[in-house]
Amino acid sequence: MPRVPVPPEVDEFLQLPNPAVVATLRPDGSPHTVPTWYDWEDGRALLNMEDSRVRLGFMRRDPRVALTVLGSGEDGWYSHVSLLGRIVSIEDDDSLADIDRLALRYTRKPFRNRDRKRVSAWLEPERWHEWR
Amino acid sequence: MPRVPVPPEVDEFLQLPNPAVVATLRPDGSPHTVPTWYDWEDGRALLNMEDSRVRLGFMRRDPRVALTVLGSGEDGWYSHVSLLGRIVSIEDDDSLADIDRLALRYTRKPFRNRDRKRVSAWLEPERWHEWR
Repeated sequence: MPRVPVPPEVDEFLQLPNPAVVATLRPDGSPHTVPTWYDWEDGRALLNMEDSRVRLGFMRRDPRVALTVLGSGEDGWYSHVSLLGRIVSIEDDDSLADIDRLALRYTRKPFRNRDRKRVSAWLEPERWHEWR
Repeated sequence: MPRVPVPPEVDEFLQLPNPAVVATLRPDGSPHTVPTWYDWEDGRALLNMEDSRVRLGFMRRDPRVALTVLGSGEDGWYSHVSLLGRIVSIEDDDSLADIDRLALRYTRKPFRNRDRKRVSAWLEPERWHEWR
């Protein structure tokens, strides 16, 4: 599995607001997966979640994560770019600036639900693989 | 996180040929994710892969896996059903019957590439979560 940095065409693919699934590790070491929005900046992926989400606790406990970003499902085959790496930063998104950034990217509108505390996490990939 | 069995409406959702991402564990315990076709039968998910895929070795070594099945991305939000569980059976798909079953489900055609050995794995979920 190649190491980062990703080549320019993969970087370009990751700039798009594609559907993605993030895997974290539960305390017993088993995997947990859930869809996620992400943004891609300078070789890292921004994730954002409510501060009550179980995966936030999982990331704090063990920062190792994987992210699969899905491309088009033409012909029933799903192209993808997947990143394996670690969460290198977890910070409160008090102003909701990061979730608005993601909501604008995916929905072209600011984030609707503004009364829950949210947290941002940055994923730094170490390796990546793809099928395109 | 609720335990199985899943309720009827979740069972119905899983019958559809939705895009999915499977997470396995690498030998160092970190997560690995990749898109996958699946079929849903009697509360278990059928997966199938080339026998050279790294995730097959990961599943043999540690059977704990997670599968996120994505629903429609209307409004930019992705609905999903995610299953946490174990691989309970790994068998050669010598006749390619299982990959044909998946290819027909996703593409309405038999599987194109018939010269590689393939393997089927059944995922038995223990817990599940959703956002729909």
